[in-house]
Amino acid sequence: MLTVPGIRAVIELLRFNPSQVKEVWISKGRGLSRLNEVIQICEKEGIPVYFKDPKDISLLLPDVSHQGAVAIVSEFRYSQLDDIISKIKSESKITLIALDHITDEGNFASILRTAAFFGVKGVIIPKKRSVSVSAQVLKRSSGACLYVPIVRVPNIANALERLSREGLWIIGTSPYAKVSLYEFDWDRDLVLVLGNEQKGIGHSVEKICHEIVSIPVLGPLESLNVAVSAGIFLSEIAKCRLKD
Amino acid sequence: MLTVPGIRAVIELLRFNPSQVKEVWISKGRGLSRLNEVIQICEKEGIPVYFKDPKDISLLLPDVSHQGAVAIVSEFRYSQLDDIISKIKSESKITLIALDHITDEGNFASILRTAAFFGVKGVIIPKKRSVSVSAQVLKRSSGACLYVPIVRVPNIANALERLSREGLWIIGTSPYAKVSLYEFDWDRDLVLVLGNEQKGIGHSVEKICHEIVSIPVLGPLESLNVAVSAGIFLSEIAKCRLKD
Repeated sequence: MLTVPGIRAVIELLRFNPSQVKEVWISKGRGLSRLNEVIQICEKEGIPVYFKDPKDISLLLPDVSHQGAVAIVSEFRYSQLDDIISKIKSESKITLIALDHITDEGNFASILRTAAFFGVKGVIIPKKRSVSVSAQVLKRSSGACLYVPIVRVPNIANALERLSREGLWIIGTSPYAKVSLYEFDWDRDLVLVLGNEQKGIGHSVEKICHEIVSIPVLGPLESLNVAVSAGIFLSEIAKCRLKD
Repeated sequence: MLTVPGIRAVIELLRFNPSQVKEVWISKGRGLSRLNEVIQICEKEGIPVYFKDPKDISLLLPDVSHQGAVAIVSEFRYSQLDDIISKIKSESKITLIALDHITDEGNFASILRTAAFFGVKGVIIPKKRSVSVSAQVLKRSSGACLYVPIVRVPNIANALERLSREGLWIIGTSPYAKVSLYEFDWDRDLVLVLGNEQKGIGHSVEKICHEIVSIPVLGPLESLNVAVSAGIFLSEIAKCRLKD
């Protein structure tokens, strides 16, 4: 059983990934102003709320500051591409990430954490020859797996073609691309595609990308770690989202 | 003995950190156009050049594409703060990094690699309660330790005060700062200060900073890995350097 304590954390989890939440505990007798929001979202999402004695919560979660709200997450569950597509239809300024055969768990965990920081709406990974969500990744991503929906697909290229038909721009990244990320117009709903640590983005995926963008080298070393690159691209996109 | 093969790598190493280079090997009988530049820098820096039979180089470095140039680095050496200060006096658009008690080797290696990518002129670390350059860091930084001068100082605050007197801006980073990195004017010579993974920047260092800058949170998770943060700050600085 995974628990997520704290009002803000519970609200964010309910907002960003309600399907992960099994039930929510609320302390009896607390001022209900901020807790009301929790209860309302649970009602809307059909998630049961249990009103508990604060002492009982503290017994189960000693030394944890829960502020009267705890979400219970049964176990990690992958999301479906259809769910993400139907969810983003009502939203704007969408950023998704597709990982084209990333193999290092540390990189994956770091990318998930950064994605959760910048409000990415979903991360797509292939089923084969790729990282997946392990206990290590759950731990090293600081729980980011719970906030960002993660989808496993049989074929990344097919998933990107589908998302392209749904109106998203497919933007690849490569050290060899001529378009600089500083000059690219990020003001669009998009899927950012990051390639394998050694080989980069595969040919079948590259063909689907509407544009391939690079980070210009300023110093003597010509390559960046993929998790650091992800942070740099997501920051550039965030900057654009914050402008309006 | 560390060897750095390849014309571009040798030139960059000679440019960015000549004090690390013990000697340079040049293949006999090669077209000298690009190798001439290597020879000229060696002459200027007083580094011996040995003209070798290509077969002898290939025997010593089998399966390595050396393009007729190899730099021999005796071992890793820390730089002196005075050397960096005298070197940057003749340059503009300087970025240095100070790490205020970073403790994770993976973070350190990643920051060094990113620093080498973005042309950072030096990285300053404290002697105690901090990472230092180990065999692991050398390997995991993809050799970045050889390109970016690294200085160990008894006291980070004192070093920053010195650099401040030399005309550099001391810019701290913190998730709690009110100034956003997207709004800050990075067009100045500066030292970017990154704090410890848990505690952030210490009080004595914070007092010396001319400004403290943050990365605005857009999603449900409120903290970023320090190596990813470093990449995001350095990219924002790089963008400003590229504008002119």
